[in-house]
Amino acid sequence: MSVIVQKFGGTSVADLDRIRNAALRTKAEYDRGNDVAVVVSAMAGTTNQLVQWTGEAAALHDTREYDAVVSTGEQVTAGLLAIILQEMGVSARSWLGWQLPIHTDSSHGSARILDIDVQALRQRFGERQVAVIAGFQGLSAENRITTLGRGGSDTSAVALAAALNADRCDIFTDVDGIYTSDPRIVTKARKLEKITYEEMLESASLGAKVLQTRSVELAMNYGVRLQVLSSFSETPGTLVVDEDEIVEKEIVSGIAYSRDEAKITLRRVADRPGVAAAVFGPLADANINVDMIVQNISQSDQSTDLTFTVTRSHLDRAVAVLEKARPEVGYEKLKADEDVTKVSVIGVGMRSHAGVAQRMFATLAERGINIQVISTSEIKVSVLIEEEYTELALRALHTAYGLDNE
Amino acid sequence: MSVIVQKFGGTSVADLDRIRNAALRTKAEYDRGNDVAVVVSAMAGTTNQLVQWTGEAAALHDTREYDAVVSTGEQVTAGLLAIILQEMGVSARSWLGWQLPIHTDSSHGSARILDIDVQALRQRFGERQVAVIAGFQGLSAENRITTLGRGGSDTSAVALAAALNADRCDIFTDVDGIYTSDPRIVTKARKLEKITYEEMLESASLGAKVLQTRSVELAMNYGVRLQVLSSFSETPGTLVVDEDEIVEKEIVSGIAYSRDEAKITLRRVADRPGVAAAVFGPLADANINVDMIVQNISQSDQSTDLTFTVTRSHLDRAVAVLEKARPEVGYEKLKADEDVTKVSVIGVGMRSHAGVAQRMFATLAERGINIQVISTSEIKVSVLIEEEYTELALRALHTAYGLDNE
Repeated sequence: MSVIVQKFGGTSVADLDRIRNAALRTKAEYDRGNDVAVVVSAMAGTTNQLVQWTGEAAALHDTREYDAVVSTGEQVTAGLLAIILQEMGVSARSWLGWQLPIHTDSSHGSARILDIDVQALRQRFGERQVAVIAGFQGLSAENRITTLGRGGSDTSAVALAAALNADRCDIFTDVDGIYTSDPRIVTKARKLEKITYEEMLESASLGAKVLQTRSVELAMNYGVRLQVLSSFSETPGTLVVDEDEIVEKEIVSGIAYSRDEAKITLRRVADRPGVAAAVFGPLADANINVDMIVQNISQSDQSTDLTFTVTRSHLDRAVAVLEKARPEVGYEKLKADEDVTKVSVIGVGMRSHAGVAQRMFATLAERGINIQVISTSEIKVSVLIEEEYTELALRALHTAYGLDNE
Repeated sequence: MSVIVQKFGGTSVADLDRIRNAALRTKAEYDRGNDVAVVVSAMAGTTNQLVQWTGEAAALHDTREYDAVVSTGEQVTAGLLAIILQEMGVSARSWLGWQLPIHTDSSHGSARILDIDVQALRQRFGERQVAVIAGFQGLSAENRITTLGRGGSDTSAVALAAALNADRCDIFTDVDGIYTSDPRIVTKARKLEKITYEEMLESASLGAKVLQTRSVELAMNYGVRLQVLSSFSETPGTLVVDEDEIVEKEIVSGIAYSRDEAKITLRRVADRPGVAAAVFGPLADANINVDMIVQNISQSDQSTDLTFTVTRSHLDRAVAVLEKARPEVGYEKLKADEDVTKVSVIGVGMRSHAGVAQRMFATLAERGINIQVISTSEIKVSVLIEEEYTELALRALHTAYGLDNE
């Protein structure tokens, strides 16, 4: 007998028929004799509507009230799923964040889970009852509803799995697993049977939208075995596990990409101490995340070019901030470019294999693709390229690293 | 400085513009220096959608889960109104049933309020903060959300006014007060400045849909001064008060009617002890409410005719129950008639005035309207008539009792 946590995302509970389908997946685990806790998202579209209303009520609004409003979506799904499970003969009840409770800090709109009280759930497991838990929500020390930020139901599920010491946490979504690359572009992409937490973390932060970054972090820290699978098919998904669980490590496990990038170049910045702080300080103050940074070799006139990327939606704000900071920074010209894509190769195997980056550079060069910026970490190499080469680059790299499906 | 409870119904908070309009009514009381608690319903249509979903999830469903689902509508409105009040510069926060808490019994779907903890509200009043309270909901001893039944937000508001010992409880709705009769039919109907609790109670149970019966009962028991008024106009509404607050009592204060009636006649029922029990017992067991009852004078053959009314939507079930009970009851023939209307004259003044019923009978007779069934209480006389005479009867009685607007 195992303890299983299941999580169904918005598209998996978009209407009553889909909630019924989800209930069947829950019933299957229950009928195997397992203790099951199900975490649910809001029905697809609901949260957007609620968020829109709060925005229309007031552009700058009290996030405590925002949380009271938007947390209702998950509450509705939890109640409906409990009803449908009961109708199928499965004992079930809904639990809201404040009922368990799921204690969080008071950062409304993006709260962190501090602790989950699972005593009541364990008792109900003993009575063979399924727990249906509203995802995305918790309770602050001030007795108010908090929410965990968009995609927070993944985090709810993983945190619950950790608190219950669950044998597995199944994340049901609209894709049937983690692929070596985006199958819509790379037709030869393969579904991975297993992937390490670290690779999954890199993928999530490099553009793969399957799992919320925080939920993977949490799973890694607590050793929660995650499975990503489709609620619409019966095929096994991809397991996200510890590195030592994977016997045959591939050097590179995936090729990720993100079009959500914009490049800013400051020409002829004075090459003196304190300039980087003068550029990146005001951006940080404006909550603009800077990703890849390259500083060119100093010119003879003691000036340098500074290139970096920001999220595309932050570009206009970033440009405004930098134009305001121009007197302190003293650059000659600002150039912004939105037509760029970040392509990354990821793999824990590259720690022990030299030449991974070199193969990437050579493959892209062969196709005549110019590399604008490079950044590396222990288990990934990312390059910024011109956007129109995205598909070509992905397919070439997928083949070059031997990932193609036979 | 007064304590004012306001309640806004579903049509008064149907969209963000209307919630803004409601907020202005709250701000006006707040700016007068008053302590204000606002009880809100769900946005019009929301509760119906939620109820429909629970019904589609399973025809017979766990009412605890039903309550978890349908209580979300008021939660959304409360958060949005709090945001809009803050935007207008009025300090405000939302309170859910479980947060105050509003303690109820565990009759999910139609719970009764046991006690409201208003300590936190009083403290916030001291800090000049408006309390926005989700209506219709409470908390059971089992820590689960309960709802009070349809229209329950009226009850939430009155119970809160009682707990706060409020100076007035303003029920904002889409009509601007209580009228002597339905103004859509009786064009000479007048808006009443004041009406007694007892008259209001009779009106509510006789077909007037402005206030929920339970909320009027509660207001009467705790002496809460109710005002019914429109959220869309600035005219004063109707005060519902104690009898001794009304100096010039009218003999009759209103003419009510209900088309939601159906008449059943059992011909040639044996006139022996136990027959009434044999008829009405099975109906009560089937949760069918019987209203007006008439038993005709016994025939020479020891049989009698029995006539009574039920709610129109219960007619089919009532007929089925009675056909099944025919062997025990022993009637000759069952006749059902849906084309009937109950017309009532109401007034506390009739306690001390003879001839009120007589004037009703005479007025209807003059117009050639046949009275099928009569029932009376201390402050009302009701008659059942053929449905097509409804408008004629209402207008004639309105004139006969001197209620016409000059």
